[in-house]
Parts: sequence; structure tokens; C-alpha cells
Amino acid sequence: MRDLNEHTLTDEVIARFKNCDNPRTLQISEALVRHLHAFVREIEPTQEEWEAAIDFLTRTGHMCDDKRQEFILLSDALGVSMLVDAINHRAPEGITESTVFGPFYVDGATLYENGSDITEGTPGMPMYISGSVNDDSGEPLANALVNIWQSDTEGYYDVQHMDTLALRGRLRTDENGRFSCWTVRPSAYPIPDDGPVGEMLAAQGRHPWRPAHVHFMIEAPGFRKLVTHVFAEGDQYLDSDVVFGVKNSLIREFKEHPAGTAPDGRQVDQPYSTLHYDFKLKAVAGASLEEAASQSDDRT
Amino acid sequence: MRDLNEHTLTDEVIARFKNCDNPRTLQISEALVRHLHAFVREIEPTQEEWEAAIDFLTRTGHMCDDKRQEFILLSDALGVSMLVDAINHRAPEGITESTVFGPFYVDGATLYENGSDITEGTPGMPMYISGSVNDDSGEPLANALVNIWQSDTEGYYDVQHMDTLALRGRLRTDENGRFSCWTVRPSAYPIPDDGPVGEMLAAQGRHPWRPAHVHFMIEAPGFRKLVTHVFAEGDQYLDSDVVFGVKNSLIREFKEHPAGTAPDGRQVDQPYSTLHYDFKLKAVAGASLEEAASQSDDRT
Repeated sequence: MRDLNEHTLTDEVIARFKNCDNPRTLQISEALVRHLHAFVREIEPTQEEWEAAIDFLTRTGHMCDDKRQEFILLSDALGVSMLVDAINHRAPEGITESTVFGPFYVDGATLYENGSDITEGTPGMPMYISGSVNDDSGEPLANALVNIWQSDTEGYYDVQHMDTLALRGRLRTDENGRFSCWTVRPSAYPIPDDGPVGEMLAAQGRHPWRPAHVHFMIEAPGFRKLVTHVFAEGDQYLDSDVVFGVKNSLIREFKEHPAGTAPDGRQVDQPYSTLHYDFKLKAVAGASLEEAASQSDDRT
Repeated sequence: MRDLNEHTLTDEVIARFKNCDNPRTLQISEALVRHLHAFVREIEPTQEEWEAAIDFLTRTGHMCDDKRQEFILLSDALGVSMLVDAINHRAPEGITESTVFGPFYVDGATLYENGSDITEGTPGMPMYISGSVNDDSGEPLANALVNIWQSDTEGYYDVQHMDTLALRGRLRTDENGRFSCWTVRPSAYPIPDDGPVGEMLAAQGRHPWRPAHVHFMIEAPGFRKLVTHVFAEGDQYLDSDVVFGVKNSLIREFKEHPAGTAPDGRQVDQPYSTLHYDFKLKAVAGASLEEAASQSDDRT
């Protein structure tokens, strides 16, 4: 085909996929071209705007390394991550809701004993995190893997400014489905805004802040992996999270206490906080134990 | 806003742009979110597919450096570049048609005298390129800037495998609007397919080939900059150019001749080719000479 114009081009691009032998690849490719071309036809970019888009994507790619994932930030800030999450979690009521994965997860964090201090010396108000992992009827799940990661008091994750890991770790639930650890109280923080995504937010007149939260990823054989946060009640950004991740069911009080005896018997000589959440996982319908175990292990 | 779901999320993302003070940024941002979300809603990606998309974009960005522009290749291979070109060149008949810019242009190539050899020693069948630059009524334009770039006989551009420039250069039209140079006959070539775009083409069941062509970018004060190619008549890929760039009006015979006296009087001791094209530029309506000159200079 020659002499394609703005009216005939889309069909011709799609016609080129005629030898694609994977139905899902074909479906995604066709939809991508249709929606991408519809976007271009609607906004009618100038050549200079097209060049700016190429430059934006290129710089977004160059910003990515093993500690920074600017394309995940972009997906998050455009609401795409939460949309994908919503589509993949049309779960019935009664299990814990999911939210965005975010760019700061690290594979293979330290496996701690319950009750451990996971701060690795990071300063801040001590916070005792406790919780349980259960099925949708409330039956506790023993030996579930609980992956926790969070920012520090200044709003930074370890990978943003340190060469070692801190404020993240893995725990196993005990025979009663319970887990616990000591950390520091996280604060609200702006997503990294010194790159292309920060430029975009500024151009769109948006702030880059997320309300204070702790990330959880929980896995147990026979249950669907849960990726979620617990948000701090009262945070000023709960209604304007830059990545659209807040759900009411995920908000809990990060309760402050004076110095004294903590719930685990520890003597704390300064004010501290406590956070508790009881998670409920969705059983994987019809999954064999082998499949479930394999699914559960795919990030550990 | 909290508890956003797949039905309410898009409107909330768009509502966040309420403080955007640039109407064009607002328009583009809104359209981007609407079309991107519509794409996601249609294909319903799994989390693993979303991760694959993030990885694809990240690797595309990492593939880009000062000699490789993988995002332009991606735009070209999805037909976006030609769509943007078509939208920006709804010109009346009578001027030369445009086509894709491509990823291999280099700013500030050598300014040669007309008739020069621009091969810098690159082997291949010699090719004499001649042409003229005119307004839409055929009046010649003196002192127009003609930027030429092309692949070699093996299908590679200088920047793909050399540290120096070759087979590219700038010429000024003479008082009769004419220009000329000696180069080598280019061949059809696959776009670089050792990166993410190559993976995409393979997955889509597509070949990566472009028909043989020479790139031209022509600028003259008071006229719109022309970005185009001249394609080789008879090339086997004219009807399946991987970037959808072929237009019938841009095809010319790359005519072969036995050894002998070339059109410029040069004695050639081996078979050689000739290519001739008479370009017509579109006058910029109402442009002051200063504006036109500024527009004309923005890439030189």
C-alpha cells in the first residue's frame, strides 16, 4: 500500500498484523494502534509536539535504573496502574482490597523473625506493626509470607538514597496467622519529581504527594497474592493521592502512644505508634496446591 | 477522592488537571488519559502484561543514545509518525509530498559544494544525485538549503557503525535552484531490529524492511520546510514499507548507466546510477521574511 493518508493509515497498519500467530498479541497490537491513532487524530500534534513526546519518552527511559522506575511512576500518575489493578481485582466483598504496586519494591528483602526491628538504624518515631493473615471467612493462615516496605520519616525509601536496605523485610505468619515487627512511622512524601514525571505533574498543575502508608505484599499457597498498602488515618493527602491509590478500607489509625510498655511487652522510652491490620486473602478457585505454591513463590 | 474503580477512575484523573494553566497541555493530558484508559479497558491487561509493557518501554528508552532512537523507530513502525506527518501536511496539490523524518538525521552535517563527492570513501556503485528546488509554480529557489542523508550499499547509515559521518551532507541551490552531488546507490534495508522494536515486529509477524531511498530535508526562507524521501522505482518493498512511508509521487528511477561520461561531465570507469528530482515547496502564507528565515534556520 502506498499513498496512505490520515484516513487510510490505521487500517493499513492493522492489516500488516495478518501474519501474527498469537491471538493475544494480535488483539493488543490492533487495539494499541486504534487507540493511539485516535489520540493522535484528536489532538493533531505538530511536528514539534511529536518531537517533544519522543524526547519525553526517551528521558523517561533514561531515568530508569535498578533503583528508579520512571515508567511505573508515569503509569501510576496517569491512573493506569490503578486501572489495571481494578480490572484484575473484581473480587467479591469480604477480602482485603488491593492498590498500586509502586516503583520501590525490592526482590529478596531480609527474612526477619516476628517482632524484629527492621529499621536497620533508620531514625524516627518507633512504630509497632502487627497484623494477621486470614482467609475470607477469617480463618488464620499460618506460614503466609508478608512482604513489608515503606518510606522513612523524611519520605524516602532506602533505594532512593542508600546502598543498603532498610524499612523493608519479609515475615512469616505464626501458627495463629499473626506477624509483627518494629519500624518507624512513615510520612507522606512526594513521588520523585526531579524527572520527566515531575515535569508532567508541574505542567498539569498537580502536586506530587502521596499520603503516608506502608506497603504489603502477602502470599500464601492456595490464595491469590495480595498487593496493597495501609494508609495513615487523617493524612492530608488521602483525597488527592497523586497515584489514585487510596481506598477507605485500607485506612487505619497510626496510633500514637506515650513512652511506656508496648503491646509486645517492649519498654519504649519515647512516644511511639502502633498500626494493626487484619488481612483477608482470596482463595484461588480450583488451584492445585502445586499451582498455588508456584504462584505464591513467583516473587520470593 | 477515594475508592476509585474502573468506572470512576478516568474522570477523577482528568479532574486532577483542574489547575493546569496551559490550555494545550490540558487538552493533550485529557485526551491522553481518555484514550490510554480506553485501551486498557478494552484489552484488560493482566498484571504480568502490565509489567511486560513497563519493561518494553524501559528497554526502548535504554536503547536510545546519540546514535540510536528506538522511540522514533517505535513511532514509525506503529504508523504514528506517518499519521502525524499526514495531519501536518494537508497541503493542496502541486507541492512535493512529505514522508517520515526517521531516526538517522544528524544535525550540522558537512556543507559541500554542488557536484561534490559525499561518500567519504564509502564503497558502492556511484550515484549522481541532481535536482532543483522550486516554488509551487515552478519558479526556482536560489540558495535553498538541501540536507541529504542515506544508507550505504549494505543498508547501514554512518551513525549505525562508524564514528565519522558519510553519505550525508548539506548543499545550497545555485542561482537556478539546482543542486547535485555524488554518492553511492543505497539499498533496501531492515530498520534496526536487534532491540524492542525488532521484538515487536517479530511478535506481530512483520518484516522490518524499508525500500531503498534517499532522505531530503529542504529549507528556504518564506517556504515551509520539506522533509521527504525519494524512493527507488521497482524496489520489492515499495508496497510493504515497515514505516508506511511510500508515496507514488516520491518514486523515481535510480537509473543505471554503463561506464562513461556522467551528466556533469565526470568520466566514470564503472557502471553508475543517476537520480533526479525536482522539488516544489509550499510558501508560508503571510510569513514575514524574518519569521520565515527563523523557521528555515531552526535545524541548521
